[in-house]
This record gives sequence, C-alpha cells and structure tokens, in this order.
Amino acid sequence: MSQLKQKFNFTIIKQGPAAARLGLLQTPHGTVKTPAFIFCATRAAMKSLTTEQLRAANTQIILSNTYHLMLQPGPASVQAQGGLQKFTGWRGPMLTDSGGFQIFSLGSGNVADEIKGRRLLGQEKTLLKIDENGARFRSYVDGREYLLTPEESIRIQRGLGADLIVVLDECTPYHVDKMYTKDSMERSHRWALRSLQEYLAQDNGAQKLYGIVQGGVYPDLRQQSVAFVNDNEFFGNAVGGSLGADKQQMYDVVALTMSMLNKERPTHLLGIGGIQDLFNGVLHGIDTFDCVHPTRIARHGGALVKPWNRDENLGREHINLRNGQYKQDLEPIESDCACATCTNYTRGYIHHLLKTETSVAFTLIAQHNVFFMNDLMHRIRTAIEQDQFVELREQWACQKPKNEMVMEAELSVTN
Amino acid sequence: MSQLKQKFNFTIIKQGPAAARLGLLQTPHGTVKTPAFIFCATRAAMKSLTTEQLRAANTQIILSNTYHLMLQPGPASVQAQGGLQKFTGWRGPMLTDSGGFQIFSLGSGNVADEIKGRRLLGQEKTLLKIDENGARFRSYVDGREYLLTPEESIRIQRGLGADLIVVLDECTPYHVDKMYTKDSMERSHRWALRSLQEYLAQDNGAQKLYGIVQGGVYPDLRQQSVAFVNDNEFFGNAVGGSLGADKQQMYDVVALTMSMLNKERPTHLLGIGGIQDLFNGVLHGIDTFDCVHPTRIARHGGALVKPWNRDENLGREHINLRNGQYKQDLEPIESDCACATCTNYTRGYIHHLLKTETSVAFTLIAQHNVFFMNDLMHRIRTAIEQDQFVELREQWACQKPKNEMVMEAELSVTN
Repeated sequence: MSQLKQKFNFTIIKQGPAAARLGLLQTPHGTVKTPAFIFCATRAAMKSLTTEQLRAANTQIILSNTYHLMLQPGPASVQAQGGLQKFTGWRGPMLTDSGGFQIFSLGSGNVADEIKGRRLLGQEKTLLKIDENGARFRSYVDGREYLLTPEESIRIQRGLGADLIVVLDECTPYHVDKMYTKDSMERSHRWALRSLQEYLAQDNGAQKLYGIVQGGVYPDLRQQSVAFVNDNEFFGNAVGGSLGADKQQMYDVVALTMSMLNKERPTHLLGIGGIQDLFNGVLHGIDTFDCVHPTRIARHGGALVKPWNRDENLGREHINLRNGQYKQDLEPIESDCACATCTNYTRGYIHHLLKTETSVAFTLIAQHNVFFMNDLMHRIRTAIEQDQFVELREQWACQKPKNEMVMEAELSVTN
Repeated sequence: MSQLKQKFNFTIIKQGPAAARLGLLQTPHGTVKTPAFIFCATRAAMKSLTTEQLRAANTQIILSNTYHLMLQPGPASVQAQGGLQKFTGWRGPMLTDSGGFQIFSLGSGNVADEIKGRRLLGQEKTLLKIDENGARFRSYVDGREYLLTPEESIRIQRGLGADLIVVLDECTPYHVDKMYTKDSMERSHRWALRSLQEYLAQDNGAQKLYGIVQGGVYPDLRQQSVAFVNDNEFFGNAVGGSLGADKQQMYDVVALTMSMLNKERPTHLLGIGGIQDLFNGVLHGIDTFDCVHPTRIARHGGALVKPWNRDENLGREHINLRNGQYKQDLEPIESDCACATCTNYTRGYIHHLLKTETSVAFTLIAQHNVFFMNDLMHRIRTAIEQDQFVELREQWACQKPKNEMVMEAELSVTN
C-alpha cells in the first residue's frame, strides 16, 4: 500500500516562459509528461478507436465519465472486472470526473455534448432536484431514479478505479446571476469537503483527488474559490465552472485563477480543447486539458489541421472532409503528419467513406485528430524545454497560406 | 506490359486428399496462398476495420463490389485516384464482382445482405428490366437509371482496377423452374462471351478474368455450364448460381460441379463462408471463398469461435456477445486466439460496448472474426501440406465441450 502511495507524484521539470511549465505526473499506471491532453473515453471507450489505436497515436492518458458508467454497467460491475484500466484494456493512467457535469447539463437543458449526439433531446430534463445533500436524477438508460451525493460520487469513482478522481461540484451555467453563482460555489465547496472526507476515510493510496475552482466569471468569487482549494489537501487542482461567454473572457478567467492558485499541484482545465485555448492555458500554468472536441468533430467529418494546412478559411481549426472540394483530393489530411491515417489514406478516400456512411471514416479521422493533439502537446513540451514556447505559440496562431493561390481563394471566400 | 502479364500465375503446390489442393495465386499486387478467404470491402472499405487492422489480422486478399462503386464514387473517380488498391490504401491483391449479384438480388426482392442492413427495404425493387442486352436498374443513391451490360461491367471493373475481375451473369434465384434456370444460364453464357471479348479487346495484362459456372441445382445444366467455362479462355473459374435450398444440396452441387471443372485454374466459390462449407469446398478443390458472414455477424455481436469454444449450443458457428451470460465474463472471445482483440479485451468489456452502442465493439469483433477466418484457412493449408486435412476437418466438425459442466448446460438448453 505504501508502495502504491509512492507511485503518485508531480514534478515540475522546467518553468517558463511566464507560468508555462514542463512536468511529470506519476501514477501507478504510468507517468504523464505535461502539458498533456486527456482524451474522453466516455463509456469506458472511445467511440471509434481501439486502445491500440489510441496508444499508436501517442496517447498518454484518457478519462471516462462517472455519470455514464454509474448507469451502465455500474461501478460494481467495472470493479468486478478489475477496474477501468483492466476493463478497457488501456492499462495506462486514467481520470474519472465526478458525474456532476452531465447531471447538471441535463438539468439546465443544455445537454452535454456526448449525450446530445446520442439519444436525448434538449428538452428532456432528467435532473429532478438539487439540494444540500446532492442531486437526484433519472437514468436515461432505464428511467430509474438515482441520488448522487459527494460521498456516492467518490465511492463510485473508487469502484471504477481511475488513478485521478475529482470532487463532486455543481457545474454552474453561465446564464445565472452572481448570487446564484456564489450560492452554488459555496455549496460546491461544502460538497468538495464531503468528497475529500469520504476519499480520505477509505484512501488506500490507489487514487488521488482533485479539487475544483468555481466562481464563474466573477473575480472575487474566483478568489474565494481559489483560497478554498489552496487551503485543502487536494492532490491536484481543476479549473471548472463557467469560464465566460467568449474566448477573451475565458482567457481572463483562466489568467486570474491561475495567478492565485498554488503552483506545486498538477492543474487541470476542465472541458477545454481548442488549439489557441491550449496555448493560452499552458502559458498560465495549466498542466492537463480534456475535451470531446477532437473526437466529436471526427464524427462529423472534421479533421484537425495545422494553421498552414487550412484550405478552408472559416476561422476553424479543422477542415470538413465531407466538403465536395475533397472528392478527388489525392493528398492526406496533412502532408506533414506522421499518423497512421495520413501515412496510408487520402482526403478523397475519406470523403468517399463519409459519403457512403462507412463508419471506418470516423476511425480514420479520430485516429488523426488524437495523433494531432498528442503531437501538438509534444511540440509544446519540446518548445518549453528549448525556450521556444512563445515562438511556437505565434507560429500556431497565424494563418500561413501555402501559396498565393490559396490566399486568393481564401480572400474570395471571405469577401 | 509483358512484365505485368507475367505477374499473374496459379501454381498447385500440393494435391490431396481428394481434390483438396495447396496453391499460389500470383497477382501484380502480391501472392495469395490458397485455399484462402476473400473479405468483402463492399464500398472499397470494410465497415469497421482499417486496412492496417485487416493486414494485422493476416488478410491476403479483399474484394469490392462493382454495383456499389459504380454508383458511388463511380469508376472514373476511383480510376482518377489511382485504382482500388491505391484508393483504399490496401495495395494487396483484390477482386471485384460484376455487379450482377446485387442488381438481381434487388430485382427479385431478396435484397443483398450488404444492402439490407443499410437503407433499402425488401419490397423496394430497383431492377427495371433484364433483356439480352443487359440489366436496367435504378440507383439507390440518387434514383438515376443505369444500364449494366456485360461490356459495361468489364469497363467499370477495368476502371476500378482490381487484379481479378468476373464476367457479368444473372444471379438466378432458387425458386424458379428449370426452364427459367436454363434460359438464364444460356443468356449468362452469352454475356460471359461478351465480357470475355470486351476484356480481351482492352487487355493490358493488369487484370485477369473469371468465368462463372451456372446451372442451379440441375446436374445436366451444371454439366453444360462447366463445359462452357472449360471451353473458354478464362484465367479462373467461379462457381455461382443457386446452390440449392440446404447444405446437403449445396455440397452435392459443389461436388458435381468440381468433379467436371478443369483443375488447372484457380477456382472460386461465390458467397459461401460457413466453416463446414469451407471444409467441404476445399475437399472438392475450391481455392478461394468470399462471404459477408464474418463481418456481418460482427455488426450484430456475433463472434466466430472454434467448435470447442462454443458455450452456446445453438448449432451456430459463433457466439452472440450481446447475451447476458457474457456481462461479466473475464475471458477473451477465445482463450486460444492470438488476435489483437483476444489479446487485449474480455467478453465482458465487448458486451458492455455492445450494450452502450459504442461502435468500437464492431471493430473488436470484426477484427477477431477476420483473424479467425484467416487462421482457419492457414490451418487448412498447413493440414493439406502435412497430410492432416481429413483429421482437421473432423476436429472442426464436432462439438468438443471444454468440460462436463458445459456439456450439462448444453443438454439443459437443448432438452
């Protein structure tokens, strides 16, 4: 047991520029080089990738969702099958969330992305009641009622067995007033203490707990929440809650929060995965990120491309391979990409697979997008190591057209 | 060009028992060790496997369907993208069918398996007219009318660029009388001659043509059709048409046909892929098989298992991983299987993926089923080489319960 305890560690290898840092996040299932991206294996799997494909795309760490797994197949079943790492065949570092995000997304009618694509409509509200004790909701699987308390979330996450787990919080939406945000934050703090207490009561060294900073877009609330997280014995920090209505507000909230948060713990930014957002987060000291974006867009034909590979100037960080322009395109998604998809397949072929609804299209695009994100994080780590992070960020911020023809085409689209 | 021509060859390495034989089928894209199974990459792809996964599962050769590809993306598009081997990234030996099977399946209301699962209902008949010239049908993609003649089928297959191509025939259904079967066979012979003529007129050595034996279940018609195929300059033979209403009739038709057919050409049995059927076909000298079965059952949770690994005694050659009995099964699909799925995943995990509609389940099962079929063909080749084929066939024919408990459970199911 003490052997297991020693297996968790977070070491900062190098610091700067600004708060950007290079780290090693050690878990019993392996070490994560940070900054790192955590991929969402929602129901204990990526929808269209095997764990071998995840590994081949240089993935370091994945997360699964407590909300989905508590309903199906249930934590007891996962535990009986050896815990998430064994169950999934992944065997590497894993994180679970608390279940709160999905429950509250459902409750406010903003169905969580992963659920939206599946079987629920926006108007179907399954959150029945939130009170001091916890959240009561109805299962989307069989209609049964469940009560998720902070203690229950920790017990479920213990059963699931991920290395990194998080406290239950209310995922406060953006469109509520400051008073609600404050009340919600304070309740989340009390839930965090109950989560911590439950965690410590049964701690066998196999898992580590993250606290979550709340406070929405309000600097004084963020300050209070940072103070709460700093003052309590969490292994890691997560930045959660509403990050604002636009990117600039998100960057401001992240900058302010990170300026006050303790520096020695690994720190995760919840649910953010845009390329520019990653650069911004890293600059302010974020160590890990997660987002369904890279795999969700794959299911709609979206392939991530570097700024200089974007034929479509639509302000997006991806191209849509369903577009007719790719019908007979003999190039890979990116000619400067070493992933299994770009090594073997053309845009034209993937376009054909999308048009004929052949599901391996999603595998090929997801495989590229996962490799892309891991490659980006690798570039970021290398840049920090070589004091080139500011330059890398600039390189990735600008649109670098391949040639003048492309530039003209882009102009004709935007004008 | 003459260099390409030399690249096609069929050599029989070893003969016996009976008509069973070990062969090498050489094509410009590689050599196929026969007996071999040809997997269906219907729309230029397997639905849930990448070509890397196909290769890792020891696949030697795949086929694509002319009917689907002529509609989408069209032979000109595939040709402009380098032909099927380059387009798909497969680069190995490939076969295309003539398009006839799907057109006539649609026509008779027996929608072809691959189509049935997709968007057409049985009653939707898209075959408009068959006459001496060819078959007129309506595209399921955009409703456009197409005319498929023997010449057009060859031209389309030339555009697609597979190594092995086949003549256009009418896929005569079982439930027609002998007169119709005879008339249809004779027209198919005339179409075969037109196919051959078109093929020879433009032959550049890059493809080889297979003739097809028709004649339904009627020995005299089979005899006439064999004589026709024997007498004409086809590179390979295919056994097609109706093979009867049950397995015994199929075995009789195959036995009779093969007893009369020339022995020096590679010979393919169209659309057959049951394990016992493969053993029977090999015994009568069949060199290659194709069937959607291994990948189609994967999409319904069906995993092929060796006779001694069948927990379910339902007279099937697979188990259904959707069944509740696998919910917490910690064993792989087969404990004596070396495929990527059995090496890394349990039945319980795949059951969970099926229950939560996570599409990677189909990838994992298909990956096993493809490996299974290739492994079976490898065992068959090894057995022929080592004069153990009869023993292997016996071993695979019987149900070998793992232990008495399983036997009792099976008895209680069947009684």
